[in-house]
Amino acid sequence: MAAFEFFYDFTSPYSYLASTRVEALAQRTGATLRWRPFLLGGVLKATGNRAPIEIPAKGKHMLQDLDRWAKRLGVPFRFPSVFPVPSILALRAALAADKEGLLVPFTHAVFRAVWVEDRPIGKPEELAPILTAAGLPGPRLAEAAPGEKEALVRQTQEAVDRGAFGAPAFFVGQELFLGNDRMDFLEEALLAARAARPA
Amino acid sequence: MAAFEFFYDFTSPYSYLASTRVEALAQRTGATLRWRPFLLGGVLKATGNRAPIEIPAKGKHMLQDLDRWAKRLGVPFRFPSVFPVPSILALRAALAADKEGLLVPFTHAVFRAVWVEDRPIGKPEELAPILTAAGLPGPRLAEAAPGEKEALVRQTQEAVDRGAFGAPAFFVGQELFLGNDRMDFLEEALLAARAARPA
Repeated sequence: MAAFEFFYDFTSPYSYLASTRVEALAQRTGATLRWRPFLLGGVLKATGNRAPIEIPAKGKHMLQDLDRWAKRLGVPFRFPSVFPVPSILALRAALAADKEGLLVPFTHAVFRAVWVEDRPIGKPEELAPILTAAGLPGPRLAEAAPGEKEALVRQTQEAVDRGAFGAPAFFVGQELFLGNDRMDFLEEALLAARAARPA
Repeated sequence: MAAFEFFYDFTSPYSYLASTRVEALAQRTGATLRWRPFLLGGVLKATGNRAPIEIPAKGKHMLQDLDRWAKRLGVPFRFPSVFPVPSILALRAALAADKEGLLVPFTHAVFRAVWVEDRPIGKPEELAPILTAAGLPGPRLAEAAPGEKEALVRQTQEAVDRGAFGAPAFFVGQELFLGNDRMDFLEEALLAARAARPA
């Protein structure tokens, strides 16, 4: 089976948009999807790239563009009142959730809290109830987060080493597709990979 | 009728890609298309934005992305041996061509020279034969270029004032659509504008 990886950070609005459609993409293409939280701030620092919001004209256009995307995809979207989102605790907790096989519901719950409900996620007492409400062991995952500090650094560095410079970043093997707006190319690559294999 | 503007620079590969499909888009939407050469370097300087090529990881991905786009659009594409392309003479000459009603064939000829044939365009003796071969008054347009210096500055500044931060930049009224990869949103906006008017 074809496979792809989805690197994302909760502070990235385009990662949220991508999170609402990666599973359908995997289904359409018959590909295996691997969810991989990483720290976008670390990627930007390592590559010399900057977030769109840092260029005022680009940030202004991004807000319009996000609304256009949300409308097209038919997903709820609200830009949060605090941005960038302090996501490091949630990213570390996501890696703890991954160890328990809970990464996918964890990811949807946190993306929704940030990009739909405008809820803060930066502190354990903010994050835990969001997880608990989603049926996850909120306090335990929040408490486990500090233990994943190094794992998050490694996962982020791996993405950088493989060529990522922003989020979301998708890989099919070593081929990079950068951005929610490149998921059509990603899909073509996965379909081509499937067609190239014997049935 | 709905109308849109297409701001472009000959040094911009995504502007080249856009140039191969703006006319079909105008036809499909029944919209009027205004071609507007501008100096991308001036836009980047004014907005604090940087060209993708300045971030090594981004530049590497861009090369793959351009190949994917050219394949999808079915257009010839070859990254030029000298990049960024010194486009200022050609942009000024383009404004001279516009005064003679020759901007569209001028634009296609120069984009093709740069992004298909890898021909230099930086000097009058390089640019003029490219234009002549396309049936345009090459030497006259190349000679008229210096007289358009201020006009190019004004056109560039206008785009910046309206929110452009890169190329290609499209406007429907004051609404900005930035990038070859946003031409689908542009098309939707033009179709919506048409639908909103009485027949």
